[in-house]
Amino acid sequence: MRLALAQINSVVGDIDGNAVRITDWLERARADRADVVLFPELAVTGYPAEDLLLRPGFVRAARAAIEKIARQVHGITALVGSPQLDADLFNACFVLSRGEVRGVYRKRYLPNYGVFDEDRYFAPGRDLMLLRFGDVLVGPTVCEDLWQPGPPATDLALAGAQLIANISASPFHVGKDREREEMLQVRARDNTCFVALCNAVGGQDELIFDGHSVVIDDDGQVVARAAGFEEELLVVDVDPVSAIARRLRDVRRRALARGRRARDVQVIELPAPTVQDDVRHPAPKPQVDDLEQMRLALELGLRDYVTKNGFGDVVVGVSGGIDSALTAALCVQALGASRVHCVSMPSRYSSDETRTDARRLAELLGTDFRELPIEPMVAAYDGVLAEHFAGREADLTEENLQARIRGTLLMALSNKFGWLVIATGNKSELSVGYSTLYGDLAGGFALIKDVYKTDVFRLARRLNERSGRELIPASIIERAPSAELRADQLDEDSLPPYPKLDRVLEAYVELDRSREELSQDGFDRDVVERALALVDRAEYKRRQAPPGVKLRPKAFGRDRRTPITNRWTN
Amino acid sequence: MRLALAQINSVVGDIDGNAVRITDWLERARADRADVVLFPELAVTGYPAEDLLLRPGFVRAARAAIEKIARQVHGITALVGSPQLDADLFNACFVLSRGEVRGVYRKRYLPNYGVFDEDRYFAPGRDLMLLRFGDVLVGPTVCEDLWQPGPPATDLALAGAQLIANISASPFHVGKDREREEMLQVRARDNTCFVALCNAVGGQDELIFDGHSVVIDDDGQVVARAAGFEEELLVVDVDPVSAIARRLRDVRRRALARGRRARDVQVIELPAPTVQDDVRHPAPKPQVDDLEQMRLALELGLRDYVTKNGFGDVVVGVSGGIDSALTAALCVQALGASRVHCVSMPSRYSSDETRTDARRLAELLGTDFRELPIEPMVAAYDGVLAEHFAGREADLTEENLQARIRGTLLMALSNKFGWLVIATGNKSELSVGYSTLYGDLAGGFALIKDVYKTDVFRLARRLNERSGRELIPASIIERAPSAELRADQLDEDSLPPYPKLDRVLEAYVELDRSREELSQDGFDRDVVERALALVDRAEYKRRQAPPGVKLRPKAFGRDRRTPITNRWTN
Repeated sequence: MRLALAQINSVVGDIDGNAVRITDWLERARADRADVVLFPELAVTGYPAEDLLLRPGFVRAARAAIEKIARQVHGITALVGSPQLDADLFNACFVLSRGEVRGVYRKRYLPNYGVFDEDRYFAPGRDLMLLRFGDVLVGPTVCEDLWQPGPPATDLALAGAQLIANISASPFHVGKDREREEMLQVRARDNTCFVALCNAVGGQDELIFDGHSVVIDDDGQVVARAAGFEEELLVVDVDPVSAIARRLRDVRRRALARGRRARDVQVIELPAPTVQDDVRHPAPKPQVDDLEQMRLALELGLRDYVTKNGFGDVVVGVSGGIDSALTAALCVQALGASRVHCVSMPSRYSSDETRTDARRLAELLGTDFRELPIEPMVAAYDGVLAEHFAGREADLTEENLQARIRGTLLMALSNKFGWLVIATGNKSELSVGYSTLYGDLAGGFALIKDVYKTDVFRLARRLNERSGRELIPASIIERAPSAELRADQLDEDSLPPYPKLDRVLEAYVELDRSREELSQDGFDRDVVERALALVDRAEYKRRQAPPGVKLRPKAFGRDRRTPITNRWTN
Repeated sequence: MRLALAQINSVVGDIDGNAVRITDWLERARADRADVVLFPELAVTGYPAEDLLLRPGFVRAARAAIEKIARQVHGITALVGSPQLDADLFNACFVLSRGEVRGVYRKRYLPNYGVFDEDRYFAPGRDLMLLRFGDVLVGPTVCEDLWQPGPPATDLALAGAQLIANISASPFHVGKDREREEMLQVRARDNTCFVALCNAVGGQDELIFDGHSVVIDDDGQVVARAAGFEEELLVVDVDPVSAIARRLRDVRRRALARGRRARDVQVIELPAPTVQDDVRHPAPKPQVDDLEQMRLALELGLRDYVTKNGFGDVVVGVSGGIDSALTAALCVQALGASRVHCVSMPSRYSSDETRTDARRLAELLGTDFRELPIEPMVAAYDGVLAEHFAGREADLTEENLQARIRGTLLMALSNKFGWLVIATGNKSELSVGYSTLYGDLAGGFALIKDVYKTDVFRLARRLNERSGRELIPASIIERAPSAELRADQLDEDSLPPYPKLDRVLEAYVELDRSREELSQDGFDRDVVERALALVDRAEYKRRQAPPGVKLRPKAFGRDRRTPITNRWTN
């Protein structure tokens, strides 16, 4: 049997465009003589379509698109994800064959944790379905269904499915591909069946879908793997019927089956697999390390945010520091140098070194570069505010003012030229509020907002290694971090050293460890106290921050929903 | 039986403070010789505590607080809302009596729509509970349980409950009190039972809980009603046993009951009601009209955001226009004039009239007033940007620049003096994006972000009427709206007239009517086209807007979750 996994990049809300894409890829799979082609979960609407799913017109348009796609399906069977409105709304897998909808499987397990809100939109399905292609029995499932160790996977296998097909839109964090693949290997072995998972790919606001679609045999071995972070049509020949032999030898499984009755299952009859005159068995695409995943996800996330929203160019305020340097370099890699504008906005506190480095960065990256000094504006504000601030010391006010002048300049360039402003703050800063609202937090997209400062350094080095030359000047990577908002300022004057801080942040923000538990974990009590107080106090800033690429198991925003008004301090 | 409904204002996360408040009000109820006192849903943690509920330490602290409260409960029974961690986490009603926890009822219906995300946190309860106070049988329920027409209410009544007690945290929108009360009247009649609902009161970020706790008899008549938008201990004598006589006469109900078997119910034995030597039957607090509800909700929401977050004073940029005038006036009513600072920031486009009106507004309100001209900053920015903007026409860039200079000035005052900036944008502007990110959208709280422009006018007039004098100068109310960001600018040059626009916005934003349906509804096609395109395009601005008071059935934010990257245009 020839499987095709169409790992496509749908656009949320673009039902017509997605339908065209699905039809195009369907043609490609048919040209490759596939027996069945899988498309991702909710491929017709894009994922997550959020409250668009509560608009009847939207759901009706998705249904019309499915009917239209179905009419194109001849000589192949297609599994396509789209919402189904019946007594309630379901997250469905449509089975298309011979020009029509032959069956509709409804997702049974609706995730409502982390970034997910599917209980808000969908009712759970109750039924099982088997697709019979001659001797081959395939059980369709949707995403979360297969993360459950029990039914529907176990019930499908007991009902005879030799292949479990899963259509997914599985949001990425670093390492998620391996986590998912290991889970699927266990499912394959537990159920002595083949598993084929077709995952979405692409960026949608803060979420990345990483692709990495995979086919696993009944021994848990990876038979085929698509690339991560790009579209791909993965075509592979498998023989799911071979699972029967293993099942007859599998004493543990037969013992389990003996005590149970297979549930009632709807069986859809479909054409038997074609006899092929060649064998498709492409080598699995290699897995890549964490840092490479971050890089690829950041580039995909930015590119999709920019292009799906119809922007042309982007603009980055480059300070000569590492955050803005990494941001600008990633923008160049994602969009090309001609679409990136670097703007240096020095003040009296900017050193000659950082000012030179900002310019040199743009040279190395090959981007447009402009220098806009902020001193005239600083002087104008100081003049107007002088009488009101009389007798008061300089403090954070004057520092924030400089950041906001820079934010205002970038937004002016954005307004005049239509450039999207890319904010440059990292996760360490955003966690502790070491950033200025409407200043360095200003922008349409905060690319590296889920990258800890220690990872900013690692990524910068990686980018230079990969390119085989200095993309980011070494002097930027080696200089001690400073906001340069007052004389002789260093980040470490205000914050714990980043290596210590980042470990505490990871434990508190992402693992929800309490103050007490963090002390037991052996973290420095002083670092813990300072970090936690800062994190809790900065929630209001994060609420007004631009979206950015989610990279970590728990990002701020959809994953970590914390009230602003909140007196809990433990 | 003497009921006490303790309509309290909990603070999210302040478990210790909430426990003290609960104990204090328990004492007051006991001093009033109440047999039972009800506290709101999740009164111990505050509602909604969001992801704090996923921290084990938080849930453990709530349980410890319940045990501590229980030890204070003697001579009275208390129903207190708090999370319960068992095999999973439940949204529970703890029954406290004789110094200990006597029972735990678990909420069965978990709302996961609109502003609610309870499936994210809680597992649904399965069981019914009856509290027996001598002859009186009381069925405890939690909020959403009673919005369901069937069980648990019907099952509780069939099991003999003469009074259904409900502890709620029911988020407000205008008219919600009447909606809720009508629903409860139907429940009482359908089940021939008394109903007592104790609702939370207070502001929590964007949500308002409106109080309006109520007791209804078995004929559906309102026996007692607490005030809206403030704390109150409502004490009332009722005789739920009288429902039995009506039940024996109720042919429809007996027919229903005959066909069914009452479900297994856990019965908790509690002290019989005390014989009282007086009668408590306070007159129901009057209901107020929509405009008055808005006013009260806005004042409560602001006051609670300011005080619960530990702010002292607030600052409002006053332009001489109606939005900022209403915002400043509401701030004064909520906090007192001494805590409100009005700042006028005129430009070359500000007319003498608006400039004078801004000053006069502050005089009428009795607040601090400052004038900070923005021309020096405009000139400085123009100078720095001139070479980059050479050969280009003036456009929105120059308008936004003025707004951002004002935002930056307000934030500088905020940083220096610790004042909270109150943004002044209304719902009409926020819907169509007729506002400047980091400009007029800058601030910690956007008080009137859910008030349509037409309601801004109505509220301004109402404030003047109520005070019996001009709080807001009549000239401000009568002048045609203008942003004054270029010469001779009027809002109506860029937008449809507000009365037309607001009706389309209400239908599209709040009722999800499609473009086609709006045409069928008889709206002007041109207004619809312009409004919808603007609304869809402005989502990215709304994401970065400050929180503000939710007043409408659907507000932006928690209620209306729309992707930014979104090509759906119907």
